[in-house]
Amino acid sequence: MDDRRDTAEIGLIGLGTMGANLALNIAETGHRIAVFNRTQSRTRAFVDGAGDLSAMIVPTPDLVSFVAAIARPRRIILMVPAGKAVDDQIAALLPHLDAGDVIVDAGNSDWQDTGRRARALAAQGFDFLGLGVSGGAEGARNGPSMMAGGTDRAYAALDPVLRLIAARFQRTPCVAHLGPEGAGHYVKMVHNGIEYADMQMIAEIYGLMRDGMDRTAPQIATSFARWNEGPLASYLVEITAEVADTMDPEAEKPLLDLIRDSAGQKGTGRWTVIDAQRRAAPLPAVEAAVTARVLSGDSDLRHRGAGIFGKADPLDLSDADLESALIAGKIIAYAQGFSLLAKASTEEDWSLPLPRIAEIWRAGCIIRSAMLDDMARALAEAPEAQLAFAPAFADRLRTHVPALRRVVAAASLAGLPVPALASGLSWFDTLRQPRGTANLIQGLRDRFGAHGFERIDRPGETDLHGPWGTG
Amino acid sequence: MDDRRDTAEIGLIGLGTMGANLALNIAETGHRIAVFNRTQSRTRAFVDGAGDLSAMIVPTPDLVSFVAAIARPRRIILMVPAGKAVDDQIAALLPHLDAGDVIVDAGNSDWQDTGRRARALAAQGFDFLGLGVSGGAEGARNGPSMMAGGTDRAYAALDPVLRLIAARFQRTPCVAHLGPEGAGHYVKMVHNGIEYADMQMIAEIYGLMRDGMDRTAPQIATSFARWNEGPLASYLVEITAEVADTMDPEAEKPLLDLIRDSAGQKGTGRWTVIDAQRRAAPLPAVEAAVTARVLSGDSDLRHRGAGIFGKADPLDLSDADLESALIAGKIIAYAQGFSLLAKASTEEDWSLPLPRIAEIWRAGCIIRSAMLDDMARALAEAPEAQLAFAPAFADRLRTHVPALRRVVAAASLAGLPVPALASGLSWFDTLRQPRGTANLIQGLRDRFGAHGFERIDRPGETDLHGPWGTG
Repeated sequence: MDDRRDTAEIGLIGLGTMGANLALNIAETGHRIAVFNRTQSRTRAFVDGAGDLSAMIVPTPDLVSFVAAIARPRRIILMVPAGKAVDDQIAALLPHLDAGDVIVDAGNSDWQDTGRRARALAAQGFDFLGLGVSGGAEGARNGPSMMAGGTDRAYAALDPVLRLIAARFQRTPCVAHLGPEGAGHYVKMVHNGIEYADMQMIAEIYGLMRDGMDRTAPQIATSFARWNEGPLASYLVEITAEVADTMDPEAEKPLLDLIRDSAGQKGTGRWTVIDAQRRAAPLPAVEAAVTARVLSGDSDLRHRGAGIFGKADPLDLSDADLESALIAGKIIAYAQGFSLLAKASTEEDWSLPLPRIAEIWRAGCIIRSAMLDDMARALAEAPEAQLAFAPAFADRLRTHVPALRRVVAAASLAGLPVPALASGLSWFDTLRQPRGTANLIQGLRDRFGAHGFERIDRPGETDLHGPWGTG
Repeated sequence: MDDRRDTAEIGLIGLGTMGANLALNIAETGHRIAVFNRTQSRTRAFVDGAGDLSAMIVPTPDLVSFVAAIARPRRIILMVPAGKAVDDQIAALLPHLDAGDVIVDAGNSDWQDTGRRARALAAQGFDFLGLGVSGGAEGARNGPSMMAGGTDRAYAALDPVLRLIAARFQRTPCVAHLGPEGAGHYVKMVHNGIEYADMQMIAEIYGLMRDGMDRTAPQIATSFARWNEGPLASYLVEITAEVADTMDPEAEKPLLDLIRDSAGQKGTGRWTVIDAQRRAAPLPAVEAAVTARVLSGDSDLRHRGAGIFGKADPLDLSDADLESALIAGKIIAYAQGFSLLAKASTEEDWSLPLPRIAEIWRAGCIIRSAMLDDMARALAEAPEAQLAFAPAFADRLRTHVPALRRVVAAASLAGLPVPALASGLSWFDTLRQPRGTANLIQGLRDRFGAHGFERIDRPGETDLHGPWGTG
């Protein structure tokens, strides 16, 4: 087949927004790409809309011609909805493939599903790559951040393409082979968890300005735009300013004020929280963000609550304090995320390269930010350390946590919710409490359930009990 | 066999602390009980220690004689560790049983395992009861609170015994048939989740007094003992006073000060949180409690954190504020728990009787309290309502939340962690925020991922998009 003039170097199945954009990105790097979509009309529309790039695209009407159009060993990227669609697509493909062909799942798959698929495909002689792709539609088109998990052979087969289509931080492509099986999708899941927390903290600061300080959306946009010039410089802060500054042309009002306050979710935040709970490595800031999204959906309940309990009071906070609080909260959220990655890496025996993960998040993905460059350096210097304790970040926390305290205290008194910021502060304060309060919990558990405790004055002795009820 | 003089009316397998105490409790109500334990020496020790009750106990050396000793249809209670031991024990029993025999799992089993077992046993002609038993060792001996799930026939067979051994609130036994299959173990799981949150909030208030207000354990005991005379009257507050007041006879110091500040957990708190996340009905107060237990285990980390960031500042709070904050926090934690029960009841089609659940928690179990009586009434009056909005509790929240605000604010400023109280306050304030901040999150999600949003001025239209990048 390699002699056919129109042989494609790579194939992609699934021409939704992400798949279509990824295919254009690949085509633009000079790779001839075969594409297939279950609904043929979408394939036609895609090629029609591809402009000059259509010369690099080989549209195919069915799986047989799709597979036949790709040079061997084949590289086939799936960009279909996570779950059953991936299994179905793999099952439909397999009879047409040859040993040595590589399947890439570039969707938002559950990392455990990816592990299962990788093992099943390995048993049948195929290499599999689970590829987390971040950056949304824009990233897929112009350069996403990509987190790969799978066999060395699978990664080697894709590496030349991935390097070219990836976002670049300075000159370094934002893609890496992070580990076997589900490691890539796992890291992508934690990325999304961090994204939840980051966005929630931004939304909390926005809420304080809007509801507590009577600021308009364009005024709030001005603050975020200014912060985007400083330590908070990041894609999310940048687009917060942009979104808050966008006027609705018809209503002649800020569009933000017209958007319903009910946030959707596709599940990766919840997956992150459940996984973290299973590993006993909880991420309170992400938990708070997921909870906030859930509660956002019950508008009736919140209106009833407002009717019963009244609205919040105004508050007075400086822009400098709000900015500082967001800096501190962000460091804390990311530190929680990297702690989870470290724990998962140990438990799954993945040897995840944490500094490399921070590096490939510096561009292309939704959470890209100036701070990630410093995090990459801090993690490289002390890979085992709690990121919050790394000197560069401990210094920043010393500087900015006092403002986080003032913001959480003021919001608590005024009655404006700051669940992610408050949980982040509690986490920080727990981590610097040399003598915690779990001694009381152990005392109670022993008192009611004879669960036993240890004593600080008798190291090595376990399952001790109190002389309860004898006093 | 029914003519044998020593035929037992019921049987129990597993003579650990809980099983042994439950067997004595049953024997004391006049039921002859056959017992079996894998390790025979424990069976002998149990009978030897049973005193006058030994006449009601039929010790058996193996499963065959255990089964043979019980009148048909047999009622057999398992009190073995959750997990594989339950499956193994059921598998070992089955060949010796007859149709119509009822197996009761009284351990802390995962409710999903209970459902699986109930279905498997039903297919083989046996009735199964999943029985959540709360109250610790003392409750098992003198009257636990019991939450049953299973077939009507299984519950009818056990009801006469359970009513007699249960704790009583005034004259009502604290036991109820709550639903099919895993419903009983599910309610027990949520009970334990609430227990986690309740204990954590108590521990946080303890920590503020100890670390922020320089109070000794006996001084703290005095506050809790006084609070136990008021709205906080509850078993946990009562034993907090007792535990804090207990001196170590050898060290001549408060024992509490010598107990290691690292709390264990058996998993039900984590199960509750994971289940709640799966159902999108998160319980932030329980999440905070589970996180606090996890972090309590890493003493080295916390000492390093203290070295880097320094310790907390003193704070000044009145006893009245601390008591009020705990009242508000407790109502919030229980409201979260009942919300989860309501959601699970709908999703699993269990028709859980929420007021009845509050009733059977009024005595016997670890979270028994005066407040649960009022909760039972409030839930009976408005079973669909958010408990925090029920008039009796809305009034209390109006009274006590201002103190919760002052406590969270003061702790945040001083640097003492109050994760469960702070998350409870954030939840409360989110529930009374008529216009949330998720509009920004939806704007951002649409900006980076074209996820779409709805508008408040265009009801019914979905998947709208912003004119991003054109401004």
